[in-house]
Amino acid sequence: MRNLLLTLSYDGKNYHGWQIQKNAHTVQAELQKALYRLIDEKFDIKGCSRTDTGVHANMYCLSMKIPCHCKIACKNFPMAINRFLPKDIAVYDCNEVPLDFHARYSCIGKEYIYKIWNNPIRNPFFEGYALHYWHPLNIKTLNTAAQSFCGTHDFTSFCTLDARKPGNFRRTVKKFEISEQNKLIIIRVEADGFLYNMVRIMVGTLLRIAEGKISEDGIKNIILARDRSKAGNTARACGLYLDKVYY
Amino acid sequence: MRNLLLTLSYDGKNYHGWQIQKNAHTVQAELQKALYRLIDEKFDIKGCSRTDTGVHANMYCLSMKIPCHCKIACKNFPMAINRFLPKDIAVYDCNEVPLDFHARYSCIGKEYIYKIWNNPIRNPFFEGYALHYWHPLNIKTLNTAAQSFCGTHDFTSFCTLDARKPGNFRRTVKKFEISEQNKLIIIRVEADGFLYNMVRIMVGTLLRIAEGKISEDGIKNIILARDRSKAGNTARACGLYLDKVYY
Repeated sequence: MRNLLLTLSYDGKNYHGWQIQKNAHTVQAELQKALYRLIDEKFDIKGCSRTDTGVHANMYCLSMKIPCHCKIACKNFPMAINRFLPKDIAVYDCNEVPLDFHARYSCIGKEYIYKIWNNPIRNPFFEGYALHYWHPLNIKTLNTAAQSFCGTHDFTSFCTLDARKPGNFRRTVKKFEISEQNKLIIIRVEADGFLYNMVRIMVGTLLRIAEGKISEDGIKNIILARDRSKAGNTARACGLYLDKVYY
Repeated sequence: MRNLLLTLSYDGKNYHGWQIQKNAHTVQAELQKALYRLIDEKFDIKGCSRTDTGVHANMYCLSMKIPCHCKIACKNFPMAINRFLPKDIAVYDCNEVPLDFHARYSCIGKEYIYKIWNNPIRNPFFEGYALHYWHPLNIKTLNTAAQSFCGTHDFTSFCTLDARKPGNFRRTVKKFEISEQNKLIIIRVEADGFLYNMVRIMVGTLLRIAEGKISEDGIKNIILARDRSKAGNTARACGLYLDKVYY
C-alpha cells in the first residue's frame, strides 16, 4: 500500500463543495470517479477540509492509500489523473507520504483568501469569483479592526452553530491582512484551523464595521461574547478560496 | 435625439461574439433587449468592432442615437441599464457625444491583450480565459521577434481571408509587448486598427517561432509575402480581450 498526498486546485463555481453527497455535483465525487478510471479499484480519499458550495481552492490537499500494484510514479500522477478530471479541477502535485499521514488530521494550518470587488459597477469577470460590494471600503480602518482576530481565542461567535457537535472552538489566528489593488480587495487569513464558516463570518463582521453597525473596536467584545448573533452575516461563498494548506 | 457612447466590459465565454445573429446568444442582442426594456423604443446600436465567439472585452464601446424623450442622465445610465443585463455584461460609463460620432468609424486605435497560461498543468481558473500552452515560452526571444510587427505594414498574411471583401490591409502597429507573471503570459498589441483575426494569427505565429518552425527573424518575410499560409495558426479565441478603444 502507498499513501499519496495530492495537491490540486479547483474552480468551485459549479460544485456543491468538496464533500461527496447523493445527487450533488461535488469535487470529491469527480476525483473518486477519475481515480477509479485511472487505478481501476475503489478506495477512500481523505480531503483536508470540507468546502461549501461555490467555494474555490487555489490549493487543496487530499491523501489516499492506493494499492501497491498501482505503479504510477508521483511525478507522472498529476498528468495521468488530469486527463480524467473536468477542466475546472487540476491536480498539480503528488508526493508519497508515511502511512499514518492524513490530509485532514496531519494539517497544522491553513490560509484562506476572500475577494471583494469593491465598486458600484459589477465586474463581469468576478461573477462567482468575488463578493460584489458597492460602498467604498476603508482598507486601513478594516485592517486595524481585524487585528483583534489575531491570537488564540474561542471563536464560537464566528462559527455557524451545529447543535449536534459540541467541540473545541479555540483557534489561533496567525495573520489577518487586507490589501487592495484596482478595486479588488483581498483578505488573507491564516490560522491553525478554522471553524465552520469562520472566515465568511469574519468578513461579514468587517462589512458591518464598514457600515458603522458594529464599532471599529468591536471585534474583541464579539469574541468574548461567544455568541454567533453578535457577529455579522456569513459573507457569500463565492469570494472564498482555500489558498494554502500547511503540514 | 441624443448620441450616447456607452463603455462596457463582458465575459465572452458564453457568447457567440458581439454581433447580433439569428438563433445565437450574442452580446449585442442582450444589449438591444436591455435597452428596449429601459427606453421602450427600438433603435440601432453601433459597436466599435465585431468580436468572435469566446472573445472577451475589458473595454468595449458602442454608440447609439436615442430619442430625446429619454431623459436618463449619463451618470445614471450604467446603473439603470445594468439591472436589465446578464451578470456577464456590465456597462461602466456613458458619455454624450456629437451626433456624427460613430463607435466604429470614429475609433482611431485599439489595444488587445492575449493571455497564455504557460504551464504543463492547466489552471482551472483560466479555462475559457487564457490559452493553455504546455511548453515553456522564452519571453525575451518572443518579445524580440514580435518587434517586427511594429510599424506600418500590409498585414494580408495576418488576416483570415474573406474573398468577398478586398480592401486595405495596411495597419500601423504601435506597440507589441509580452510580459509574464506567475506563468501567465500577457501579450499586449496596440494598433490603429485590426484585420479579422489579426491578433490571434500574430499569436499563432509567435508560437510557431517558439516551436522552431518559423525562424526568430521570420516575421518580416511573412509580412512581405502577403500570404496567409506563411503565418501560424489562428490562436484560440478564449485568450483574447479587447482592452482599450481610443477616440
